[in-house]
Amino acid sequence: MKELEDRIRKDGRVLPGNILLVDSFLNQGLDARLMNQMALTWQEFYKDEPVTKIMTIEASGIALAVLTAYRFGVPALFAKKYATINLTDDRHQASVYSYTREKSYSIAVSRRLLTPDDHVLLVDDFLANGCAMAGLADLVREAGASVAGIGVAIEKSFQKGPDLLRERGLTICSLARIESLEEGRIVFGEADA
Amino acid sequence: MKELEDRIRKDGRVLPGNILLVDSFLNQGLDARLMNQMALTWQEFYKDEPVTKIMTIEASGIALAVLTAYRFGVPALFAKKYATINLTDDRHQASVYSYTREKSYSIAVSRRLLTPDDHVLLVDDFLANGCAMAGLADLVREAGASVAGIGVAIEKSFQKGPDLLRERGLTICSLARIESLEEGRIVFGEADA
Repeated sequence: MKELEDRIRKDGRVLPGNILLVDSFLNQGLDARLMNQMALTWQEFYKDEPVTKIMTIEASGIALAVLTAYRFGVPALFAKKYATINLTDDRHQASVYSYTREKSYSIAVSRRLLTPDDHVLLVDDFLANGCAMAGLADLVREAGASVAGIGVAIEKSFQKGPDLLRERGLTICSLARIESLEEGRIVFGEADA
Repeated sequence: MKELEDRIRKDGRVLPGNILLVDSFLNQGLDARLMNQMALTWQEFYKDEPVTKIMTIEASGIALAVLTAYRFGVPALFAKKYATINLTDDRHQASVYSYTREKSYSIAVSRRLLTPDDHVLLVDDFLANGCAMAGLADLVREAGASVAGIGVAIEKSFQKGPDLLRERGLTICSLARIESLEEGRIVFGEADA
């Protein structure tokens, strides 16, 4: 998506450790107009899927999820993060490993809100190691529901997440694909839409 | 806003401790269509204010903020929560007391994203003790910016937040006003829009 790539070139900042900071338009600062364009792009890409819900993980995916849900005319849903795993009967749960924090945390969603008849589009701002997205797919599977596909704003194709998810048979639509951030330079690959 | 009141009557659940659970449509589960109606209602209420940004606090206010921002044609912005206060030069900070957790936490927003020429509409899902909203108003003041007004989905008028904010001269537009949750019954007052 050219408009997103242009914005990353203009306002993205590369920090040490292959970190791309987009907090002026995709996180903390939210460019609602640009995000709406992203939602429309996913709507076109997944137009043949009978999507019933848009799902993400708190907090940075929420804005993209709700704008996408508005465009699809379906509800959004976000999984909550918990530092520890407290098994309860009323929610679906999955474990996610964080490479940043070097420990696992738990994500969960109410059983009332995710049911076997759901066909879920998973969205998030970044796809890097893929652990959070794999956790969301685990929640959908635990609910007996199905994954319609994945919508990612920025894919870091040099990290293992994209391959890991595709090996699970999941379709990904990344709107910007970054092949390298070495030496502070942003190198784009070809995106899915 | 009648549609919101009807939805609260239908799907809201009252828990002990005057807690109103609306997680099937305003938190975790997000009814994007209803939230867009709420955004349109605030847009009409604040149509004479030259709003430049919509601001909220992570995580539950983000969905409302970004849909409102889309309707106003301005960016949204969310303050991040921190367990401890780490003073840094690059962000505005304020302290917020949590009655639920009986301790204070810090909220912060990047100085690049909130500047003196901003005229900010503050939005959130709930207004009860008003501490989080007062903290957001503090951030705006610290940035040398101005508050256009406050948009609240659900105001608990029996708690002290609404009076506390009005005493500071802030305008509030609550879309549902709850006067009592005693004995598990939801008693509505007249809302602002």
